[in-house]
Amino acid sequence: MSTNREIHLASRPQGWPTAENFRLVTTEVPTPGPGQIVVRNQFMSVDPYMRGRMNDVKSYVPPFQLDAPLDGGAIGEVVASEAEGIKPGDTVLHGLGWREYALLDAKAARKVDPSLAPVSAYLSVLGMTGLTAYAGLLDVAAMKPGETVFVSGAAGAVGSMVGQIAKLRGASRVIGSAGSAAKVERLKALGFDAAFDYHDGPVRESLKAAAPGGIDVYFDNVGSEHLEAAISALNLHGRVAICGMIAQYNSSEPPAAPRNLALVIGKRLTLRGFLVGDHGHLRDQFVQEMSGWLRDGRISYDETVVDGIENAPAAFLGVLRGENLGKMLVRV
Amino acid sequence: MSTNREIHLASRPQGWPTAENFRLVTTEVPTPGPGQIVVRNQFMSVDPYMRGRMNDVKSYVPPFQLDAPLDGGAIGEVVASEAEGIKPGDTVLHGLGWREYALLDAKAARKVDPSLAPVSAYLSVLGMTGLTAYAGLLDVAAMKPGETVFVSGAAGAVGSMVGQIAKLRGASRVIGSAGSAAKVERLKALGFDAAFDYHDGPVRESLKAAAPGGIDVYFDNVGSEHLEAAISALNLHGRVAICGMIAQYNSSEPPAAPRNLALVIGKRLTLRGFLVGDHGHLRDQFVQEMSGWLRDGRISYDETVVDGIENAPAAFLGVLRGENLGKMLVRV
Repeated sequence: MSTNREIHLASRPQGWPTAENFRLVTTEVPTPGPGQIVVRNQFMSVDPYMRGRMNDVKSYVPPFQLDAPLDGGAIGEVVASEAEGIKPGDTVLHGLGWREYALLDAKAARKVDPSLAPVSAYLSVLGMTGLTAYAGLLDVAAMKPGETVFVSGAAGAVGSMVGQIAKLRGASRVIGSAGSAAKVERLKALGFDAAFDYHDGPVRESLKAAAPGGIDVYFDNVGSEHLEAAISALNLHGRVAICGMIAQYNSSEPPAAPRNLALVIGKRLTLRGFLVGDHGHLRDQFVQEMSGWLRDGRISYDETVVDGIENAPAAFLGVLRGENLGKMLVRV
Repeated sequence: MSTNREIHLASRPQGWPTAENFRLVTTEVPTPGPGQIVVRNQFMSVDPYMRGRMNDVKSYVPPFQLDAPLDGGAIGEVVASEAEGIKPGDTVLHGLGWREYALLDAKAARKVDPSLAPVSAYLSVLGMTGLTAYAGLLDVAAMKPGETVFVSGAAGAVGSMVGQIAKLRGASRVIGSAGSAAKVERLKALGFDAAFDYHDGPVRESLKAAAPGGIDVYFDNVGSEHLEAAISALNLHGRVAICGMIAQYNSSEPPAAPRNLALVIGKRLTLRGFLVGDHGHLRDQFVQEMSGWLRDGRISYDETVVDGIENAPAAFLGVLRGENLGKMLVRV
């Protein structure tokens, strides 16, 4: 195969993205220069945070460029190498998804052992997704055994890990919110003590019913009304780890909620935003602990897999609409 | 003198309080029982947080009761004692302000030395006010030398301490906002590097002009648009110590701002509410450091003094309207 297909950003979305914002482009398979490798991608990740990079605003990661391929986490097999220490046949994790073949410096790739776990797991439970949940819950929010934890977007890739890690680390009660009855059922199967569909009524009331004793930790993937409800339910000295605010990524109007922020004073609450990149020091500990839980069958992870690079935009739109259970991946 | 005058809460304010919410009541001077003392109050404190206690809602301190005296920080001279270790003539700090004579358990009073500082200072710079500034800036927000600090309500009792302590502890730049041109002048005299009147334009623009390199710490006394502007100006890993949100204490509508809270993720910001009561472990260190600064003339403090218990409600309303420079006190 001598052609490569990749997805370009054709135009910047206004509000919700549509298929027209993306373009499938056919190019040549690249040839590696000195120190470089070419990877045939097997899986790529589509994540809510990518929506922010589609806007032309300064942020913690640079915006995607128009008429150039998008990028993001991917895993694949090396097919050509001009670099020491990496040879064709090796499996590597890297940051150039959204294309069938990736050309990159070998230094930007990390070799993984495909015999230890399905390769897709390195993008989900054993990868950035799992570490995000682990670091946010245990480091940023400093959850302690015996506490009550609430996580929004709980059936998503990160949220489903947060809830399970909380239970494994001794939380007394774990509550999740999600966007459908089927997801709520799944959360209960994963061991959540309570779960609700946020469409079923005001989040504040659903949370109050699920957590009559209040909550100590809130892991926020959603923002807005969910955050307001959590602030209302948090106990003294409660902590919020703010991982995402998907409810407002596609808003043209800035959100008015939370309107009860003054409660942070009397309750002495801490709200802290974080990016997983700041918590790399936890990676080894995380991989060791998570591998053990996986080996012992104490943790489950869901993947929603879409086939074909041409369907990557649809997969991404699906994540924003919450169509995924667990991690959304594209099998390239 | 055998009569005592005290201020009762006559009715709960809706929105902004008025004189009609208070009532001056004359009673007998009380007689101490075993273990009790009677204090003739010399000064009492009026503070913005008292507004919250006038509502009948569960909070971190119980609400004031109708047709009963208000309370709050006060200092005075013991006139009668049935307690060991405290004798008439001693000066004590305690929590029963809003009255000329206070009857209390000796255990609830703290003896202070009136020869070391004017007695009013124990309610302001050397008291809870100073400790609030010290703990919020150095403990809650963990300010480090070389950082840029922004404080709102900067001409108030706490704010003016925050700015000066920041400079003394090595902040590279300190910015304050206040509500009049005279206050802005006073801030510059106190050593603030920049100050602005928040009436002069959008807070976001004034702050941006005063802090072209952004800010690292925000000490919040105001909330709402001030908090939104600070979130916008904060640098990576910035911290917010949330001490008060006076902008919204009298609102009947919950505030919509800040609308840019999602920025906490990419910037990895920490927002933390606090009450000085949690930071008592810093008291000795604070008193030692603050006394040194006062002795060396390196810190200034303003007091706005209103005479007469009958004028305490007006003094309190004045604080809410920002009529004070520095600490608002009532000389009883």
